[in-house]
Amino acid sequence: MHKELLEDIGEKELIKRLAEFMPKNQVSDDCAFVKKKNKTLLINTDSLVENIHFNDDTISALDIGWKVVASNVSDLISSGCSKIIGVNIGLVVPSKTDWIWIKDLYTGINLALNHFGGLILGGDCSMGQEKVISMTAIGLQGKIKLRRNSCKPKEIILTTGIHGLSKLGLMIKSKKIFDTDISLTKSLINSSLQQFSRPKLKPNFLKKVLKARPNKSIKMIGCTDSSDGLFQALLDLATESNCKAIIDYTKIPKHKNWPKGHKWDEYYFFGGEDYELVFSLPRKWANNLLFEDKTVTEIGYFLEGDASVSFENCDNKNLFKNKSFSHF
Amino acid sequence: MHKELLEDIGEKELIKRLAEFMPKNQVSDDCAFVKKKNKTLLINTDSLVENIHFNDDTISALDIGWKVVASNVSDLISSGCSKIIGVNIGLVVPSKTDWIWIKDLYTGINLALNHFGGLILGGDCSMGQEKVISMTAIGLQGKIKLRRNSCKPKEIILTTGIHGLSKLGLMIKSKKIFDTDISLTKSLINSSLQQFSRPKLKPNFLKKVLKARPNKSIKMIGCTDSSDGLFQALLDLATESNCKAIIDYTKIPKHKNWPKGHKWDEYYFFGGEDYELVFSLPRKWANNLLFEDKTVTEIGYFLEGDASVSFENCDNKNLFKNKSFSHF
Repeated sequence: MHKELLEDIGEKELIKRLAEFMPKNQVSDDCAFVKKKNKTLLINTDSLVENIHFNDDTISALDIGWKVVASNVSDLISSGCSKIIGVNIGLVVPSKTDWIWIKDLYTGINLALNHFGGLILGGDCSMGQEKVISMTAIGLQGKIKLRRNSCKPKEIILTTGIHGLSKLGLMIKSKKIFDTDISLTKSLINSSLQQFSRPKLKPNFLKKVLKARPNKSIKMIGCTDSSDGLFQALLDLATESNCKAIIDYTKIPKHKNWPKGHKWDEYYFFGGEDYELVFSLPRKWANNLLFEDKTVTEIGYFLEGDASVSFENCDNKNLFKNKSFSHF
Repeated sequence: MHKELLEDIGEKELIKRLAEFMPKNQVSDDCAFVKKKNKTLLINTDSLVENIHFNDDTISALDIGWKVVASNVSDLISSGCSKIIGVNIGLVVPSKTDWIWIKDLYTGINLALNHFGGLILGGDCSMGQEKVISMTAIGLQGKIKLRRNSCKPKEIILTTGIHGLSKLGLMIKSKKIFDTDISLTKSLINSSLQQFSRPKLKPNFLKKVLKARPNKSIKMIGCTDSSDGLFQALLDLATESNCKAIIDYTKIPKHKNWPKGHKWDEYYFFGGEDYELVFSLPRKWANNLLFEDKTVTEIGYFLEGDASVSFENCDNKNLFKNKSFSHF
C-alpha cells in the first residue's frame, strides 16, 4: 500500500486531519475549552523537542524551562485567560541526562510560573532517546473570549509589541549571525538575546482590553499570539475569521535599531517565538486601548473579502510570496 | 564537575526530587488535584515512548491509542474520578511516519474514550526522532477521595481483579514466550493478549464503593492502581500510608489456568499494566463490597508498623527480595 508520509502532508494539513477526531468547537484555536457549570477552563498543550525546538548549544535548561511555560501560557493569554491555574509536565529524557539539567529545567519552569502565575501541578518522567518536554497548561476563561475566528470586517488590527527579536537572538546564539555584525547595535543584540532566552508575555492584556471596552455587550474578540511569527498570526486570524487583513508596512513597530533589508523583513515577519498578541477591535475600543497603553500599535484593518493578508506601502514585493511559518 | 546521571539516580529518587518543585499536597499520587470553588479537578499526565513502552513489532497504533488512554484514565479512576472530562495529546513523531499510523492512533484514542468517557480536547503535534505520546487527562473528583496515603491499620486490602495477564501478553507478542508453550491454555493466551492490547478498566469502581459504604462520614480511602504491578501498588500504599501490608499469598486471585512456579509469580506480582485497583477498606465496608461485587477479592490487611509488604503462606521465599517495578 502507498505510504503517505507525514513530511509530505505538511503541518497545516496534519492539523486539519487531526481536528476531525475532536469536537467541532475545538478546531480553530490552539487552546481547548471545557465548560464546567458557569466556568470555562482553557487547556493548552505545547511540546518542545530536542534538536527541533532547542538544543544544548544555543539555550540553557533554565531558559528552556522558561520558554516551555511561555509558549503554553501565551496560548492561554491569547484566549482571554483571567487566571493561570498551573501546568502538568510530561518529560522524556535520555538515561545519560545529568540531573543538573533536569533540576535547571524545573527551576526555569518555576521561575516562569512565579512570574506569569500558576504552579506545577504534576506530571511524569520517562526515558527516551531525545529530550521532549510536553507541557499542558490550565487556566480560567476571563470575561471575554479571545478567539482566532472572531475578527470582523472594519475592525482595526493591533499588536502588543515588536517582532523578529527572538529569531535574531536564535541566529546569534546558533552563530549564523555574529554579534560583531556591523548592522547590529548593542541594544538590539541584548534585546534579541533576552527575547530569545526569556521571552516576556502580556499577562495583563485581558485586563487592559476590558478596561478599554466601550460596550459591555461585546463578549468575544479576534486574537492570537505571534508564536509562529507575525505573518502567520495575521493569516490565521484572516483564515479563521474569513476576512481580508490589510497591513500598513510603515506602521509595524520595529526595534529602534532594526536594520533595513529583505533578510531583516524575513526575520521580522516569519521569525516566530515573540509571543506578542495580534488582535482586532472596533475603532472606538481600539482608540481607547491605544490611548491607555502606548506599547500597543495599530498596524492595519480587516475588510470583507477572501481570507488573505495584504500589505500597503511595502516596497519588498517578494517578501510575502508563498510564505507561511511551519515547524515541520 | 561530577555528573550525576539519571540512570544512576533511579526512578523513585527522581520522582522524589521532582516533587520538591511542586506544592506539597501533590506529591503522593500520580494525579494532580486542583480545587476550584466546590469542585476538584483531577489532572494526570502519562507518556508512552517508542522502544521504552511500545514498539511497532508488538502492538498496533490502534492499541497504543487505547492503552495511552487506559493508563491515564486508570490514574483518574484510582483517585476517585466521577467523570472523565477529556484528554489533551502532545504527540511527537518522526517525519517519516505514515499518516495511517497517526490516524489509527487517534482512532484508538477515541475508541477508548467512547468506552471510558471523555473527549479529545486538543493537543499539538511535533516532529522528533522517536514517537512519544504524552497525554494529559482531566476529570472531576467524586464524593470520596481515593489516595495512596489514606490506608489505615486494621483495614482489609482488596483488589478488583487478577494480575500478570498483560505481562504474559507482552511476552507472547515479543516472542519471549511462545503460544505453543505447553503450560499455556488457549483461554489464558487469549485473555493475556486481550489484556495487553486492550486493557479493561473499572470505570464504575467509585459507584460500587460508594454503594457499599456503611458510614457516610468517611470521605477518603487508600487506593492506587496496579499499572506498575501488584507488588509496587502494595508497596506504594504501605509507604505513603506508613503502615504494614500483610498479604495472604493463597488468597490472591489468579487466572484459572495460571501456571505455578517462580517465573509465573514474577509475572504476576511485577508485570504491570493490568490497571486493576488495589485498595483498603474497614471490615464492614469491605464485606458489603465483597458481597455486592464478586470480581473484588480480599487479599490481606494492614497493620501498624514499618511501611512494608509481607506475605503469608508463600513458599517462594526469594520472590520479593529487593524487588520494585521500575520503568527505568
